[in-house]
Amino acid sequence: MSSVKQVAAELLGYDKLTIITHTRPDGDTLGSAFALFNALKKLGKDVRVVCSDTVSPRYRFLTNGQADICNDVEGAIICVDIAATYMAGERYEQYAKNADIVIDHHASNSGFGKINLIDENAAACGEIVLKIIDEISEIDSCIADCIYTAISTDTGCFVHSNTTADTHRAAARLAECGARVTELNKLLFKTKTKKAFELERAAFDTLEFFHRGNIACMLIPYQKITELLANEDDLEGISAIPIQIEGVKAGVTFREIKPEVYKLSVRTTGEIDGSAVCKAFGGGGHKMAAGCTLEGKYDEVKKKMADSLYADLK
Amino acid sequence: MSSVKQVAAELLGYDKLTIITHTRPDGDTLGSAFALFNALKKLGKDVRVVCSDTVSPRYRFLTNGQADICNDVEGAIICVDIAATYMAGERYEQYAKNADIVIDHHASNSGFGKINLIDENAAACGEIVLKIIDEISEIDSCIADCIYTAISTDTGCFVHSNTTADTHRAAARLAECGARVTELNKLLFKTKTKKAFELERAAFDTLEFFHRGNIACMLIPYQKITELLANEDDLEGISAIPIQIEGVKAGVTFREIKPEVYKLSVRTTGEIDGSAVCKAFGGGGHKMAAGCTLEGKYDEVKKKMADSLYADLK
Repeated sequence: MSSVKQVAAELLGYDKLTIITHTRPDGDTLGSAFALFNALKKLGKDVRVVCSDTVSPRYRFLTNGQADICNDVEGAIICVDIAATYMAGERYEQYAKNADIVIDHHASNSGFGKINLIDENAAACGEIVLKIIDEISEIDSCIADCIYTAISTDTGCFVHSNTTADTHRAAARLAECGARVTELNKLLFKTKTKKAFELERAAFDTLEFFHRGNIACMLIPYQKITELLANEDDLEGISAIPIQIEGVKAGVTFREIKPEVYKLSVRTTGEIDGSAVCKAFGGGGHKMAAGCTLEGKYDEVKKKMADSLYADLK
Repeated sequence: MSSVKQVAAELLGYDKLTIITHTRPDGDTLGSAFALFNALKKLGKDVRVVCSDTVSPRYRFLTNGQADICNDVEGAIICVDIAATYMAGERYEQYAKNADIVIDHHASNSGFGKINLIDENAAACGEIVLKIIDEISEIDSCIADCIYTAISTDTGCFVHSNTTADTHRAAARLAECGARVTELNKLLFKTKTKKAFELERAAFDTLEFFHRGNIACMLIPYQKITELLANEDDLEGISAIPIQIEGVKAGVTFREIKPEVYKLSVRTTGEIDGSAVCKAFGGGGHKMAAGCTLEGKYDEVKKKMADSLYADLK
């Protein structure tokens, strides 16, 4: 494992670099990548950021408005927030396999680069990137915005359990370096698309409690998804709702991807093993966040899932 | 204006103290009060916290489960997070008028105590209390929990615009002093009462857009409030929802307190002056958060309000 100083020195040695972000890019991979991009650009480097997928409108400010950052790879290859090479996406996986530097915070990262800086205690990859940039450049307000986006989105704005004292200390630094905290928080945490609202409303109407309130199930109907032409960005976050209701020990969101075919997102408080229950239906995941796919009449599949989850509680 | 050191020295001089919190007590007033209570208790002082109103279940962990902290006032009087004496409530206003020490972060505070420590740059009163306790005691995990509750609730968990670098630095300190950040965040920001959910669902069903999506109105029907026996705690937060929807410049929540009598909560992005519009209907408030009371058929009052708000935009 390399140190922050080693990675910084290595970055300074390259004249041409490509930073690869993961598929379905989120705030952490994009914020980390564009923070490095801005810092290296200021140092006169020839640098670009690439991604296999389109950037959602929410994060486009990081890329100066570009939705498509699918370019050619040139020079040294840097992977940020990529836990495994396949997460670079089909187009960039071969390049990720030859990564010069891997910067990440996923414990599962095997260290697939020539140089690896992996800190699983960092709440976000952005926390590590802040330390690297501190070695090579001033943190200007533009870089601060990028890293603040990375850290705040990966912690749900300092709510999730990955948030540490270091995370808050990084946020304090970034605020002092000119990150537009108020504007970014409004954009990232206080803005809901109209489609997301309509999906939530439709899902709320279907929310039902089972087994004396221990289990909650909610449907996002196929018809609603197609009618609204809803995308991943609009659907993000909805699955977190049922488990927030007092007394609920497992919350299931049934997303009807085709008529009578459901992609399930199961969240639990940990008293029920969501992963074990989903495995029995051909899915998997973590104890507190798992998933699987089911087919059939909604009334039947929801009953089957509610019963299985409740059986695991006892 | 007194300094942190002066207030700390003064507190150490008293043997018997009563800390007054404001009516409809929130996380900041209670967290600040119980942090001081715990610190002074450890120093062997005879100390109590009082409040005119019941403590909501959400914050009862701070009080060791007591809902009712309406006791007699004895010894020196300390007011925390009380912007004006009337906010101490009918039972304690006379005592607040004789406050020995006033600790607050509201810019409007006139400094009604013998000694006043008012810092309007503090995101929460808890930020000031942290500095005071640092002068008189160790911050143990119990005190850290109280102050973390104060700071996190008054900033919406570091989302609101009052959040500063100092706020994050305080949070980092508290995490290191043993605040149970993960558990507190779950309790304070990821838990919704069943009643709150049912109210939200009912309100969502009524949400309508006016004037090409610039205005959103939502009703919490009287029948639903009475059917659920919903309290303030359940209703809190709902008013913040309509303004979060993309494109909405003013979001209005109509809370039907009696049949065809509505308490309105108006939130705006700032492009519409909510205060000016509400004043015209006998209410008031701030530009971005105002209110008033209206009577009549819902269809008529909502149209009247939507039109008035939209007229202010142009």
